[in-house]
Amino acid sequence: MNSVELNERIVSRGKELFAAIAGEKPSLFNKNAWVGKVMDWSMKNETFKVSMFRFVDVFPALTSGKLLTEHINEYFGDEKEMPQFLSTGAKVAGMLGSLGSTVLNKVLSSNIHEMAQQFIVGEKTGDAVKNLAHLRKDGFAFVVDVLGEATLSEDEADAYQNTYLELLDHLQKVQGDWKPLPRKDGDPSLDWGHAPKINVAIKPTALYGLANPQDFEGSVAAILKRVLRIAEKVIEVNGFLCIDMETYRHKEIILEVYRRLKRAYPDYPQLGVVLQAYLKDTDRDLEELLSFARKEGMKISIRLVKGAYWDFETVRAKQNGWEVPVWTIKAESDAAFERQARKILVNQDICHFACASHNIRSISAVLEMARELGVPEDRYEFQVLYGMAEPVRKALLKVAGRIRLYCPYGDMVPGMGYLVRRLLENTANESFLRQSFAEEMQLERLLEDPVITVEREKVGARPAPAVATAGAELPPFENEPMVDFTKDEPREEFPRQIELVRSRLGRSYPLFINGNERVTADTLKSVNPANPEEVVGVVCQAGPAEIADALAAAKAAFPAWRDTAPATRAGYLVKAAAAARRRIYELSAWQVIEIGKQWDQAYADVTEAIDFLEYYAREMIRLGTPRKVGHAPGELNHYFYEPRGVAAVIAPWNFPLAISTGMVSAALVAGNTVLFKPSGLTPVIGWNLVELFREAGLPDGVLNFTPGRGSVMGDLLVDSPEVSMIAFTGSLETGLRIIERAAKVYPGQEQVKRVVCEMGGKNAIIIDDDADLDEAVPHVLYSAFGFQGQKCSACSRVIVLDAVYDRFVERLVAMAKTTKVGPAEDPGNYMGAVADENAVNHIREYIEIGKREGELLYQGEAPTGGYFIPMTIIGGIRPEHQLAQHEVFGPVLAVMRVQDFDQALEWANATRFALTGGVFSRSPSHLERARREFRVGNLYLNRNNTGALVERQPFGGARMSGVGTKAGGPDYLLHFMDPRVVTENTLRRGFAPPEDEA
Amino acid sequence: MNSVELNERIVSRGKELFAAIAGEKPSLFNKNAWVGKVMDWSMKNETFKVSMFRFVDVFPALTSGKLLTEHINEYFGDEKEMPQFLSTGAKVAGMLGSLGSTVLNKVLSSNIHEMAQQFIVGEKTGDAVKNLAHLRKDGFAFVVDVLGEATLSEDEADAYQNTYLELLDHLQKVQGDWKPLPRKDGDPSLDWGHAPKINVAIKPTALYGLANPQDFEGSVAAILKRVLRIAEKVIEVNGFLCIDMETYRHKEIILEVYRRLKRAYPDYPQLGVVLQAYLKDTDRDLEELLSFARKEGMKISIRLVKGAYWDFETVRAKQNGWEVPVWTIKAESDAAFERQARKILVNQDICHFACASHNIRSISAVLEMARELGVPEDRYEFQVLYGMAEPVRKALLKVAGRIRLYCPYGDMVPGMGYLVRRLLENTANESFLRQSFAEEMQLERLLEDPVITVEREKVGARPAPAVATAGAELPPFENEPMVDFTKDEPREEFPRQIELVRSRLGRSYPLFINGNERVTADTLKSVNPANPEEVVGVVCQAGPAEIADALAAAKAAFPAWRDTAPATRAGYLVKAAAAARRRIYELSAWQVIEIGKQWDQAYADVTEAIDFLEYYAREMIRLGTPRKVGHAPGELNHYFYEPRGVAAVIAPWNFPLAISTGMVSAALVAGNTVLFKPSGLTPVIGWNLVELFREAGLPDGVLNFTPGRGSVMGDLLVDSPEVSMIAFTGSLETGLRIIERAAKVYPGQEQVKRVVCEMGGKNAIIIDDDADLDEAVPHVLYSAFGFQGQKCSACSRVIVLDAVYDRFVERLVAMAKTTKVGPAEDPGNYMGAVADENAVNHIREYIEIGKREGELLYQGEAPTGGYFIPMTIIGGIRPEHQLAQHEVFGPVLAVMRVQDFDQALEWANATRFALTGGVFSRSPSHLERARREFRVGNLYLNRNNTGALVERQPFGGARMSGVGTKAGGPDYLLHFMDPRVVTENTLRRGFAPPEDEA
Repeated sequence: MNSVELNERIVSRGKELFAAIAGEKPSLFNKNAWVGKVMDWSMKNETFKVSMFRFVDVFPALTSGKLLTEHINEYFGDEKEMPQFLSTGAKVAGMLGSLGSTVLNKVLSSNIHEMAQQFIVGEKTGDAVKNLAHLRKDGFAFVVDVLGEATLSEDEADAYQNTYLELLDHLQKVQGDWKPLPRKDGDPSLDWGHAPKINVAIKPTALYGLANPQDFEGSVAAILKRVLRIAEKVIEVNGFLCIDMETYRHKEIILEVYRRLKRAYPDYPQLGVVLQAYLKDTDRDLEELLSFARKEGMKISIRLVKGAYWDFETVRAKQNGWEVPVWTIKAESDAAFERQARKILVNQDICHFACASHNIRSISAVLEMARELGVPEDRYEFQVLYGMAEPVRKALLKVAGRIRLYCPYGDMVPGMGYLVRRLLENTANESFLRQSFAEEMQLERLLEDPVITVEREKVGARPAPAVATAGAELPPFENEPMVDFTKDEPREEFPRQIELVRSRLGRSYPLFINGNERVTADTLKSVNPANPEEVVGVVCQAGPAEIADALAAAKAAFPAWRDTAPATRAGYLVKAAAAARRRIYELSAWQVIEIGKQWDQAYADVTEAIDFLEYYAREMIRLGTPRKVGHAPGELNHYFYEPRGVAAVIAPWNFPLAISTGMVSAALVAGNTVLFKPSGLTPVIGWNLVELFREAGLPDGVLNFTPGRGSVMGDLLVDSPEVSMIAFTGSLETGLRIIERAAKVYPGQEQVKRVVCEMGGKNAIIIDDDADLDEAVPHVLYSAFGFQGQKCSACSRVIVLDAVYDRFVERLVAMAKTTKVGPAEDPGNYMGAVADENAVNHIREYIEIGKREGELLYQGEAPTGGYFIPMTIIGGIRPEHQLAQHEVFGPVLAVMRVQDFDQALEWANATRFALTGGVFSRSPSHLERARREFRVGNLYLNRNNTGALVERQPFGGARMSGVGTKAGGPDYLLHFMDPRVVTENTLRRGFAPPEDEA
Repeated sequence: MNSVELNERIVSRGKELFAAIAGEKPSLFNKNAWVGKVMDWSMKNETFKVSMFRFVDVFPALTSGKLLTEHINEYFGDEKEMPQFLSTGAKVAGMLGSLGSTVLNKVLSSNIHEMAQQFIVGEKTGDAVKNLAHLRKDGFAFVVDVLGEATLSEDEADAYQNTYLELLDHLQKVQGDWKPLPRKDGDPSLDWGHAPKINVAIKPTALYGLANPQDFEGSVAAILKRVLRIAEKVIEVNGFLCIDMETYRHKEIILEVYRRLKRAYPDYPQLGVVLQAYLKDTDRDLEELLSFARKEGMKISIRLVKGAYWDFETVRAKQNGWEVPVWTIKAESDAAFERQARKILVNQDICHFACASHNIRSISAVLEMARELGVPEDRYEFQVLYGMAEPVRKALLKVAGRIRLYCPYGDMVPGMGYLVRRLLENTANESFLRQSFAEEMQLERLLEDPVITVEREKVGARPAPAVATAGAELPPFENEPMVDFTKDEPREEFPRQIELVRSRLGRSYPLFINGNERVTADTLKSVNPANPEEVVGVVCQAGPAEIADALAAAKAAFPAWRDTAPATRAGYLVKAAAAARRRIYELSAWQVIEIGKQWDQAYADVTEAIDFLEYYAREMIRLGTPRKVGHAPGELNHYFYEPRGVAAVIAPWNFPLAISTGMVSAALVAGNTVLFKPSGLTPVIGWNLVELFREAGLPDGVLNFTPGRGSVMGDLLVDSPEVSMIAFTGSLETGLRIIERAAKVYPGQEQVKRVVCEMGGKNAIIIDDDADLDEAVPHVLYSAFGFQGQKCSACSRVIVLDAVYDRFVERLVAMAKTTKVGPAEDPGNYMGAVADENAVNHIREYIEIGKREGELLYQGEAPTGGYFIPMTIIGGIRPEHQLAQHEVFGPVLAVMRVQDFDQALEWANATRFALTGGVFSRSPSHLERARREFRVGNLYLNRNNTGALVERQPFGGARMSGVGTKAGGPDYLLHFMDPRVVTENTLRRGFAPPEDEA
């Protein structure tokens, strides 16, 4: 049969299915019911849709009437935006006063519960099993899925596993009572003669809280352990187990878990996995799975879905600078679905197929392809979601005879996430159900071959217009992509480059002055903090003579560099960025070894360095163009900037490449010449930066590398009358010392020094009473303990509202317990060593203080042999405690309990610092208040409070955290220059030339 | 005759005149001649026109072959822009090498000379008289005008006067030999039977260098003195004297001179004056002149012209914020010309009429109106410019029989200004000659009634589109208009308000803390520096207790003020500006009395204060709107600013309202609360500022007024841990002390203090070898001695190239000699008293140093009884001298001689300061170099280097002049705030709301 004929059959089959539906609508789109109204309004009004879905999301957390009322007002308070079915209720409630709002709350609660129940087969195991029996009576098979909160800890993973085991027990007991679904032939004890009555699906990440492709092997092993336990039981009950696919991040892990599961039970065919047609990878993944099965001589089963995380995958990829992993035209996914379905059907001898779609075109295609290929009925089935697309399931039951409903069950709380996903799916413009039932698109279009649809839409899609930018040669700034551990490359490159770096350890490093390497007698060793025996490098130390030479070189190089065109200076930064990009894994590996950064953190430090180079290059091109000011005729006024002279850059060890690069490149691109003093703990990474600029061909003397002992060097540089500005990032004490000393003007000094200074933080995250703890707990853990808490942005205080305190702390501690501490080069370790012995002593001292001031909630293990500190969480801390005021700069988190959000804000602001902060809340008014009143340099709402990105999150604080500069932001370069104005009187002999409109 | 009939006659008369011309072109538009080519190219290419006219302007200053060659290359170096008649020459010259360029120079020089000679009747008196005789032989009468450089001194005025007397002597001797021009009747010894053969025109401002409407009476008297001397001679030779009109600025002075001249010779009718039809005032001025003549029973004569300074008047008015005094549609001037001509013709019994126009429509209108009204031929005549519009003069001679040519004579140097004006006139799009002869517009259109033309063009002119701005309520920023002393109001208001202020002297002034006036026992007197016996006010002095209270008040007021919406804060500034506008003359008068500012300077200080208020209000609305940064989906990043806390504003006395207002209003509008300490020399003006903000209704505690003794107050404020920032303008010593002390962080201090600090200057103006000294000399004098040199921007060094040194110094000293020193309340005084006795001693000390280091070129007189210092100019100063390095802050100008422009730049930059600078040059390459290499905060090309305007010239310097802030510029408010970023993760349950495109 040729493809035209096949397509005709598919369309005709589709029409048959539509006829079987006979104008019926899914209950979702029934406008007489509350849920139908919500859907209808959501499709008409994007603002309402956002509010409604967010409200549904937060709803389970609204455990008191007061909370519920407040949130209703905040989400739907603007009556103009409120649909009548809500506003009428609100009006009535208003007339009735507080009693009214109680009534409204009850009505709303019951409506939302009802809406959720539509999609969830039951909240308790007993109810669920009963409802499943009802479904079977109506002729439907089921696959049951346990809804759960995000799994953050081993306890939670165990609980999830145990729920499955109990469920299976329960089902085991009742399945004998169930009449099998109708059959033509086959085993009379099975559904349709071939299918187990018990069919369960599991979400693998619910079985391990720290699943993470960076630690690929660790993640696979941890998940597999529990999958095997469940599979054992499934096999015991002769059931079917399907491993669900989740987001792209875990896809490779899940496929590997499935392969290992199959290898464990090669002869048990009832073990399936899900593939998502919307992933560009899926053709290849399918091919590989089929090859795997053939090679191993085993039978597999694949459920093919379109995929439910399209928005998320798209946003996440764009945020990280990755290729979008999903097809961006809806019909491309539909076409892939048909293509992949055919592939599976062709391989029906080794692969059972579950076609999971509500799209009648896709279903018809599968029906007709199966018929064309002569696929036996026991080799494929149809699945749809419980509570959705009732007419489709009805038609399918009529036409295909075999249909299985995907039935989630469990608590309302996790159920809401599922509910929102389903609501979104069905209100999306491209939704087949929306198009079929809410908008009644023409049948022909609904049943069109998606390959044709793609062609048409691709023609329609116009290319994005080329944007003309100021620095015409450079494209607009984009952040360097984050490392993507779902790919093989980084998982392979990290160990390889760490090995390479290790082969180069212990070398000597010179100074670099006026374009020449310079060796000194005085040297200092840099060591691996996870193993201080391992010497990373032996580094020459500048003394007064070398500083004097470097200052002279920088001063001599200044005029020519200052007079180099801004775009040319920017060009050196772009070249250095290219050099860094080429060495990105090597530069990351140095950080793993020299300062103990985890792989992802190390890589992020390098991408941030690249971002600074690329961003400041563009910023300088922007600022380097004189700006016309005023608009009076007869005069031309140009406003522009000029560099200051010699800049001293004094860098920290915690972002040894990124912050150094930021300060150095800002100073350079603005036209200053630089003396760069790296931290004594990371001088080799500092040398890397010099290499990047040498490769870029920077003129001699413009950048000078002068590592040295802080005790000697700092004051020398700061006091020098030759230095015109100082860029410093580091501790409060050193910062204030620099500010104070730099303010003194010495004889011969040409200008008042300027100090760009970033100091410490005592950053808090507030956990509101309606916070999504699934999100808050892992983000707090990461913010507090990522890179051992050694970030100025790190969360060192978590301020938790009383209402959620116990639950939050319980989950936080449980999650903490799952983490491991050890050398950063092993990606299985959540934390590595801290910087050096001073850090160890300082942090240990504060742990003791904290134990006295508060109560130790958790203290983990720490290995010996390196500068390791256990992860430490201390509760009962109040603002007057040292642990709430002093920067510890290590893995020590203070937990503070507050009564309400007012107190939370008050305590959050009650330190000398004002660097970063965070809030987890789903109350629009609290988020709005936090925006205004949580007075920190960088505030993060509903996410971790570290990892500021250049351009997107210009970084820096006020008060004792800094002098109000924002690295990676639009005002930063201004601090490295002075503005000038040139006014030309263009009127001569009474004649002014016509004005240039540029 | 009705107007339709009259118009028909005018058109038909015009056609007759065109027929008489018979296709002939003025030589200016003859493309076979060099000048015709220049005109042709200029009309086609605006860039070439600008270069060419500027080159012609500088040409007389190019006294060496080298200079000439350089300028040719600079003005016409880009061959693509060069017309063939120049590029061929240049190519030939190039091939011939240096010989070639000599040849080219010669050719070009001779061409330009020839072009000039076309418009100038002779360079020497003898030649001129000979040429005039030739013209008479051709049947033309003449009016002769002496071209001169700008008159800057009494010597130059005397020289100008004497040239006239000599010319008249010469003419007296030869007029007997001249045959009178043909007559029908009348006196056979006179031209046409009624007109004197000798007819001269004089430019009144050439008779007094400091003519200035602010000193109206002084200007009139000084001009009249020499006019009378010339008139006496004119009457002696029985000639005709016409007083030319110049720019609008001097119009009232000239009319008054004419009236007094007429009163001196009431019976001599041959004394005329010029009116310009393009001035909107002229209908009224004509009416008044006619009334004057009738009332006094005397006969007058009026030459009516269109007006030659249209560009200048328009630009000048717009630059100063004044109503444009000229008609903006060309035809409006033509219509006014006809209207006014008729008025004169109607009054022919008392007013003789000279119709001076090249416009055939205008001429025809006069011919026909005169015929209609029966005006005798001896009551009107026609005038055209020598060297232009030859066909018109020929036709007029044929038709009207009476025509007089306006004949300038004199040196090439001043001739060039005249030449450029004529070239411009004839290449303007609206030029009648251009339209008639170069573009051959249709006759009907050329002869159209201008009233009709105006109607048509007004319909065509579209209203300017309303610009939508960020702070939608406020219109875009415009500078407050400068004071316009051509109007009566300011000339009357100043004496009146000074009297008013004087009636309020000696009052007591309290502090103002937390909304309450507060009296202290300790007080300090403020006195009039021109008369220290006169006590301006008795001012309470804050001590530690008051400062503590004010700090507490400011701290308490901060949170609410910080949280007040930026637009609301801006509103208070706008209200304060309105209050200042209402009291503008009174506020100016306080400055005249309390600190000795001249009227215009005092007024400018108040307008600058208003500008700061209006500008910062708008800036804060702009900056107060959070800015979206980044463009990743799933997150919203807002970048915005937050105030710092309590700001201490420490203000100087030299711009007692403007700078105080600038610093205070910037701090306030940004959301800080303020302690404002005015200078001890100008506390009453400081109190005025407080009154403005009280009137605006500023909340209590937001602005606190704390005058106090610097010795006590300064350190108290600077050291206070409650102060978050300091805005200071003043001396280097105090500034550095503040910077050093403010850098220390005290216990309890919440943030690192920021210091916005403007300090001194040692500002230089460079006089290049091709500078226009007519411009340079008065601008240098004003920059150096305006307000007694007590501006941080003042010129205290003038660096003169050797080639023009002698001439520059000679003219500068000569101009200085014409100035008077005395109380600022008398507008005749160029300089007033300096600030106080300390200033007197300090300045006198530097005068003595200067005399030792260099050579005293000029020292004027100074009255006694006040803090007066003579104007002092010291030559022979070199960079190593104290007078070249130390800020004197008084009326002492150092003159430095350099060999070339390189050395000029080197010396200009050779101080610790970098505030303002200036260059007078007509070399494009030198101006371009200066833009880059003359490294000061504010550089001014070809104008004075004081008087920076808000928005147009953001003001401030680098090096030891300041910390790189620019008051009145786009970055200024940033210094009063800290940036913050709020990042919201908008992704929930995989769903990101659609991005707000705002």
